[in-house]
Amino acid sequence: MANYSSMDKKSMLEELDNVKKIYNEYKSQGLKLDMSRGKPCAQQLDLSMPMLDVLNSNSDLKDQKGLDVRNYGELEGISEAKKIFAKMMQVDVSNVIVGGNSSLNMMFDTISFLMMKGIAGCEPWIKQEGIKFLCPAPGYDRHFAITQYFGIEMINIPMTENGPDMDMVEDYVNNDEKVKGIWCVPKYSNPQGITYSDETVTRFAKLKPAAKDFRIMWDNAYCIHDITDTPETLLSIMDECKKYGNEDLPIIFSSTSKITFSGAGIAAMAASSGNLLTLKKKYGIQTIGYDKINMLRHTRFFGNYEGVLAHMAKHKAILKPRFDAVLEKLDSELNGLDIASWRKPNGGYFVSVDVLEGCAKRVIELCKEAGVVMTSAGATYPYGKDPKDSNIRVAPTYPSVDELAKAMDIFCICVKYAALEKLSK
Amino acid sequence: MANYSSMDKKSMLEELDNVKKIYNEYKSQGLKLDMSRGKPCAQQLDLSMPMLDVLNSNSDLKDQKGLDVRNYGELEGISEAKKIFAKMMQVDVSNVIVGGNSSLNMMFDTISFLMMKGIAGCEPWIKQEGIKFLCPAPGYDRHFAITQYFGIEMINIPMTENGPDMDMVEDYVNNDEKVKGIWCVPKYSNPQGITYSDETVTRFAKLKPAAKDFRIMWDNAYCIHDITDTPETLLSIMDECKKYGNEDLPIIFSSTSKITFSGAGIAAMAASSGNLLTLKKKYGIQTIGYDKINMLRHTRFFGNYEGVLAHMAKHKAILKPRFDAVLEKLDSELNGLDIASWRKPNGGYFVSVDVLEGCAKRVIELCKEAGVVMTSAGATYPYGKDPKDSNIRVAPTYPSVDELAKAMDIFCICVKYAALEKLSK
Repeated sequence: MANYSSMDKKSMLEELDNVKKIYNEYKSQGLKLDMSRGKPCAQQLDLSMPMLDVLNSNSDLKDQKGLDVRNYGELEGISEAKKIFAKMMQVDVSNVIVGGNSSLNMMFDTISFLMMKGIAGCEPWIKQEGIKFLCPAPGYDRHFAITQYFGIEMINIPMTENGPDMDMVEDYVNNDEKVKGIWCVPKYSNPQGITYSDETVTRFAKLKPAAKDFRIMWDNAYCIHDITDTPETLLSIMDECKKYGNEDLPIIFSSTSKITFSGAGIAAMAASSGNLLTLKKKYGIQTIGYDKINMLRHTRFFGNYEGVLAHMAKHKAILKPRFDAVLEKLDSELNGLDIASWRKPNGGYFVSVDVLEGCAKRVIELCKEAGVVMTSAGATYPYGKDPKDSNIRVAPTYPSVDELAKAMDIFCICVKYAALEKLSK
Repeated sequence: MANYSSMDKKSMLEELDNVKKIYNEYKSQGLKLDMSRGKPCAQQLDLSMPMLDVLNSNSDLKDQKGLDVRNYGELEGISEAKKIFAKMMQVDVSNVIVGGNSSLNMMFDTISFLMMKGIAGCEPWIKQEGIKFLCPAPGYDRHFAITQYFGIEMINIPMTENGPDMDMVEDYVNNDEKVKGIWCVPKYSNPQGITYSDETVTRFAKLKPAAKDFRIMWDNAYCIHDITDTPETLLSIMDECKKYGNEDLPIIFSSTSKITFSGAGIAAMAASSGNLLTLKKKYGIQTIGYDKINMLRHTRFFGNYEGVLAHMAKHKAILKPRFDAVLEKLDSELNGLDIASWRKPNGGYFVSVDVLEGCAKRVIELCKEAGVVMTSAGATYPYGKDPKDSNIRVAPTYPSVDELAKAMDIFCICVKYAALEKLSK
């Protein structure tokens, strides 16, 4: 097919007519397809059903230390769960706290704590006027929602193939004491699937923040979530930070939400002993302890970290065809038209597509009218505002391969439709 | 035995010598006994072991609405769990949110929200100077810890046989707009086991708070936790409040922590539709949803509210002999000495003992030296300061009947020891 931008106006309008016809055919089918959220599909959830057999009425409900996990106590979580998360988060076991079913909740709680109480001897954030967070974008809408909820100003940081633009990050962090934090999804980032390069991680570790209470929110949600046979690797932020005396900078999060059950997994966080000491004082007020039976269920199911990795290989087998379906359609339908670009991720939960500037909202509106629900345009940017109105997050995990193929046909037609509308104006 | 206070000094000193001898004998036995926390015993936890068989790898993991509980979503919790909690909290199903494993965490989150965001169109509490909470005392140490954590001034409200001193509550709430809340454990209160009378509940419902953002924190932790055959009843605070147009006042909490597993139960809160609308905005930022598999496990185990009540009868059979052991020792060892008073509760988790003024710390110190751990003196009062140094919370649920008898022998000797030290000075 011809590159759209080099077409003359007449050909464009003809092509738009063709595209509209196809679009209207799809629309008339009254489809209902959803590529909006990073939800595991039923097949993935089925992988963990045997975990429900691990504990039964005859089980010994004691952890490795001999603690009855049914009762109160053990604020930090059981040690066997800490061990597995330590490997996932690339830290020492002593740095880990295992929590409830949601790492997002632990992030919310952490920001809430920093707002209310502060850290490193500094004033609580709420008492410091005009504080800011750096937000590599496109990024995760729920991170941005937390920041906005607490009234923290958000600054867009462009993403590169190696992670956030580190020149810009260094410039802000090292010079502006109002900059208190940055959101990072360092491996298979949401939505682009970018893994931060070794240089990027090292530059994070070498930061010299103007604010003593600056923290890196390191959401390693997809740490072992490969989808191809060319997995990527990430340096340990904690190890790197230690080299430069910066171990108080990172606060690391992870969970099994996309390993076992997204609604009923276990979450964890990791931080330096100094940060943990402060945070545990808060946790000790907030709760008596998290659900240790579910922790034990998980650890007995997996045995150890290697067991988790073996389980992830099964997810990969389910997800690869889904990502392939999306990428094949993008290739066959949009390649060479010069109206969209996308990355082929090696892991994570999304495919990120950039359409022509000013077209993302229109594409998503057209999709919706044809029965295909996509993540809202702008959702991948702070305040829901994509400055170029260009980024669209495609979530291939939940629908079946057949549904994805159908939904992607419609999506690609909508991308063409919006591009031709714009170009022919 | 003679009333200690009417003894002459010589008899007192002789009696003190006797008591010291017995005390030292106990001490030399090197015992290790714990009556400090309201933890269920293993026998109680065993009652819920069959709950671990309810869901297995062959189970249908859909809730009544057809939702796959393994996946994300359903922020308010599954409807079958809401139904059971609605009965426990004496509210309509539509007023309920089911949360994670800890109602304490939901209370912390609620106060945190009110501090950060405020309610009823008022300024966030953190922006209002000098705000206060009423704390009926003796009360629950973890309530007071939350209040103190957020820097809210606490005011002691004496407890009567009918609940908090309502003259004082009305005087504060209706006249001082800095008074923003009150902590209540309305049924089988911690530690005294007092159930608020109908008049008390009605007077709460009729409050005319000076502050529009005044809220009643109604922690109904022991709503169905009877231990005798003469259970007490509590009016529905929500129903009463509705009668006086005050349905926005109460925020109600409960959990299954002392019904199923204390570390792995499910918690819930209830509030007016107006309050819920505000709170759900926060919950929607904080998490994608709580552990619905554990909710389903609970509801399939119990079937319905009546199933929960049948289960509570089994707890009662385990707890009654334990409470009896404590009360029998108090009766046989301390009755008539005029050095201690206590209530005989019909439910809840504690026996509250008032020793002579200025003696509680000393009793607990003596107990500790003899190997019996009690809740710290003062713990039942705001800031850990019992103004009379008199109240001691005895937790009879965790130890065996034999251990309790032994521990109570030692406790009673320590009460005598401290009383005689004081009286003979």
